[in-house]
Amino acid sequence: MPRTILFHVMQMHYVGHVISSDENGVFMNYRLILKLIGNMLLIKAAFLVFPLLVSFVYGGDDKVAFILTIFILIVPGAILSIVKSENKKFKIKDAFAATTISWILFSLFGALPFYFSGYFPSFVDCLFESVSGFATTGATILSNIEALPKGILFWRNFSHWIGGMGVLVFMLAVLPSMNASSINLLRAETTGLSPDRFVPKLRETARVMYTIYLSLTVLLIVLLLISGLPFYDALLHAFSTAGTGGFSNMNASVGAYGNVGAELIITIFMFLFGINFLLYFYLIKGSFKNVVNDEELRLYALIVLVAIGIITINLSRYYGTLLMAFRRSAFHVVSIITTTGFSTSDYNLWPVLSRVVLLLLMLSGCSAGSTGGGIKLVRFLILFKASAIELKKMVYPKSVKAVTLNEKGIDNDIITKTAVFVFIYFFIFLISSVIVSSEGKDIFSTLTAVIASLSNIGPGLGIVGPTGNYSEFSSLSKLVLSFCMLVGRLEIFPVLVLLYPSVWKKT
Amino acid sequence: MPRTILFHVMQMHYVGHVISSDENGVFMNYRLILKLIGNMLLIKAAFLVFPLLVSFVYGGDDKVAFILTIFILIVPGAILSIVKSENKKFKIKDAFAATTISWILFSLFGALPFYFSGYFPSFVDCLFESVSGFATTGATILSNIEALPKGILFWRNFSHWIGGMGVLVFMLAVLPSMNASSINLLRAETTGLSPDRFVPKLRETARVMYTIYLSLTVLLIVLLLISGLPFYDALLHAFSTAGTGGFSNMNASVGAYGNVGAELIITIFMFLFGINFLLYFYLIKGSFKNVVNDEELRLYALIVLVAIGIITINLSRYYGTLLMAFRRSAFHVVSIITTTGFSTSDYNLWPVLSRVVLLLLMLSGCSAGSTGGGIKLVRFLILFKASAIELKKMVYPKSVKAVTLNEKGIDNDIITKTAVFVFIYFFIFLISSVIVSSEGKDIFSTLTAVIASLSNIGPGLGIVGPTGNYSEFSSLSKLVLSFCMLVGRLEIFPVLVLLYPSVWKKT
Repeated sequence: MPRTILFHVMQMHYVGHVISSDENGVFMNYRLILKLIGNMLLIKAAFLVFPLLVSFVYGGDDKVAFILTIFILIVPGAILSIVKSENKKFKIKDAFAATTISWILFSLFGALPFYFSGYFPSFVDCLFESVSGFATTGATILSNIEALPKGILFWRNFSHWIGGMGVLVFMLAVLPSMNASSINLLRAETTGLSPDRFVPKLRETARVMYTIYLSLTVLLIVLLLISGLPFYDALLHAFSTAGTGGFSNMNASVGAYGNVGAELIITIFMFLFGINFLLYFYLIKGSFKNVVNDEELRLYALIVLVAIGIITINLSRYYGTLLMAFRRSAFHVVSIITTTGFSTSDYNLWPVLSRVVLLLLMLSGCSAGSTGGGIKLVRFLILFKASAIELKKMVYPKSVKAVTLNEKGIDNDIITKTAVFVFIYFFIFLISSVIVSSEGKDIFSTLTAVIASLSNIGPGLGIVGPTGNYSEFSSLSKLVLSFCMLVGRLEIFPVLVLLYPSVWKKT
Repeated sequence: MPRTILFHVMQMHYVGHVISSDENGVFMNYRLILKLIGNMLLIKAAFLVFPLLVSFVYGGDDKVAFILTIFILIVPGAILSIVKSENKKFKIKDAFAATTISWILFSLFGALPFYFSGYFPSFVDCLFESVSGFATTGATILSNIEALPKGILFWRNFSHWIGGMGVLVFMLAVLPSMNASSINLLRAETTGLSPDRFVPKLRETARVMYTIYLSLTVLLIVLLLISGLPFYDALLHAFSTAGTGGFSNMNASVGAYGNVGAELIITIFMFLFGINFLLYFYLIKGSFKNVVNDEELRLYALIVLVAIGIITINLSRYYGTLLMAFRRSAFHVVSIITTTGFSTSDYNLWPVLSRVVLLLLMLSGCSAGSTGGGIKLVRFLILFKASAIELKKMVYPKSVKAVTLNEKGIDNDIITKTAVFVFIYFFIFLISSVIVSSEGKDIFSTLTAVIASLSNIGPGLGIVGPTGNYSEFSSLSKLVLSFCMLVGRLEIFPVLVLLYPSVWKKT
């Protein structure tokens, strides 16, 4: 389900063969991609009006940074958006290219307000912060967040909200000019791990998704206000929670408020944003059965409960009371598994069992089709089921049992693709770890920095723990980690496929 | 190729359907399994004569320990070995059961001399040391190895040698009484990742394998003697190197001798024992082409060279001279990738890049069909190739390209089984990590202790590093780590399959 267009595309791949490559000729549809990028730059300029307003309201010194960036975006955006393309069809590689390029440009241009504001040490730092924002990671290079003007902090967290559901989906939902090509992207959404799930068309779906997303966000803002958070803080933390990002406007993250109510509300909403948005669709349609029987949701709830249980018991002595242990445990378990990355205490200091459990949650991720990052539970579910069947086949070679998910058969092709996804995920993790470790930071900070970036969590352990940040890393490491965040957010395939030179050639 | 029977069985699985389950009825062939176990206990008793002799030669106080164990083994061994079984056929599940039970019993009885000697704190410690020996891990709970009698230390390292090639293969090679059933196991070996590789029959193969194994070991002993090591030390380190175990009779491992020649010889031989034994077969037959073109061997050599290169450069400042950096780097890279676990210095103190590279080598393992442990490079090779093809399929859905290994096509079924193997491997790692971490040792020691056990390496990082040992862990952790060593040595499937209750039932 649509986290972004590429998520549709990803799903398309799970079934494969949906869009045949010969249908639209073998050329990349460059014109349509350029047009899409143009639209996307204009949308970005429009988004920047919000932090500019915030800057005016609070009288910050960051107004010029936003105005400058808006002007830089408008000119190329306007030119590209009027590009005419007769061929309105998006092939898979077009969708991949459009998505990856859009995200790279979005991150680059998103870094400009940071750069122009003068509050960031270098452009690489600005880029890191921008990628971390849009990729809903929440890793920061800032040591003193509270020193920044309110417009800039707003932009940081707003980028989480934009990145959470995806800007391309947003574009499809609101721009009538993209109608023609959106029709060609419809096929993507009628497929997926359970292809029968989707009824409405892409545009319709995109709108419903954004409506759910917006409604939940508004509800969260209201609840946070009731809990006693100031309006600005409620707004920013709602953006961050909805996108499962993790940026906060406070140095001590959510812990700064010491507000049990706000913590409880954020815990529940992080969990909610970690659920496949399709299930909210079902809820609206009244098919409760589909929701309660969803295997991924059940696994998600089970893992969260077990993890909270283990850590609560493990922390009971550390915090003195079981209630406090539960409060800290529940918040961080949900914060990590949803890849949000908020914190209310320094889990770096927790006993080793608790940290190991958090580390495993960092790897698991939450549900596919949510705003969360990571590998996603459904992939583990498929691999686990496939493993059980393979083991059985070893002793009973004649037993023929297929992997099923929510009572639907899963094709062997999907199992292979799932395994490939997990394998490449770890491969990128290993290569990145070697590069980042070359600068000599301690081994545990290095490894968890890479995991936390690739899984879009934000904080890891060690120097990149809840009380630390990424400022100490070299520019090379920051670029590698930025790549990890982007490739993690785009779920690998759209980025990697573009590395095949033949994709760009005429044959 | 035959590390053990189960390796044959494993390979059988790679192709599947080799032995149909109805052929011999659906019952487990309990009688044949019992007979096999009986023979195995008698062989164990025979093996124990060697350390007993050593004890007599050096006048140790451990004679009684060996004599007692031999008597304990002979009675049940003799009774079970005369069990008559009309049905001489080994089904897959029979082979799995026989293998797993044999290894458990071998480890249990192998712990008795340690226990009777009185030099070990508890029976769990003895069991840990025994499993570590036979599973060719080399993890020890001993803090002062040199304080032990020479017979006991001989037994420790001899168990590496026995476990390296496998006791069941040994039995098939030497016991005429097992002929009938060995014929039924022949099918196992005519299959594999490249089924055409094997020409000779199992018994023949087992003999050739043991001849190669013994010859290389004897050559190594001679070379170590020439390098200046005392006979006893040369013998023990040769056993350990051949089985890629890692036990040493010195507290400082191979580093104790400060002997460049011995280090060089051991480095080369660790590498040699990390090669698929089938390639030696080819060498003997004169098919050099098959050897130099073997993709796994090429990858193995490449990874070793690159890792040595990176670590040498990284260590050049640490050791002052490039030559010393190379000497340390080469020894430890080969020691870790072959899962031997010898050391000549404390790599715990190395810069982080070097440690990260070693950590990755811990996960990779060396070649399938060698005496080494771990996941094995051929599995990564298959997954890597499958991933590249899947990525290409995403943009060119019509491209049909199959995964090949050494110019032979690899079935989709094999790819799935490989992915399942790696997935279960990590799953066992995660579950074990959670249990071991509950005792609160530091997180890095905990995680690397589990990796080092599961991959049969021995030393990890932190408190289980080259200068440390496993004595500080609780009995629960030692049992979990022992399970990891066993399941790692038996390459998972034979052990896990037995957890299906239906395997033991009549239907």
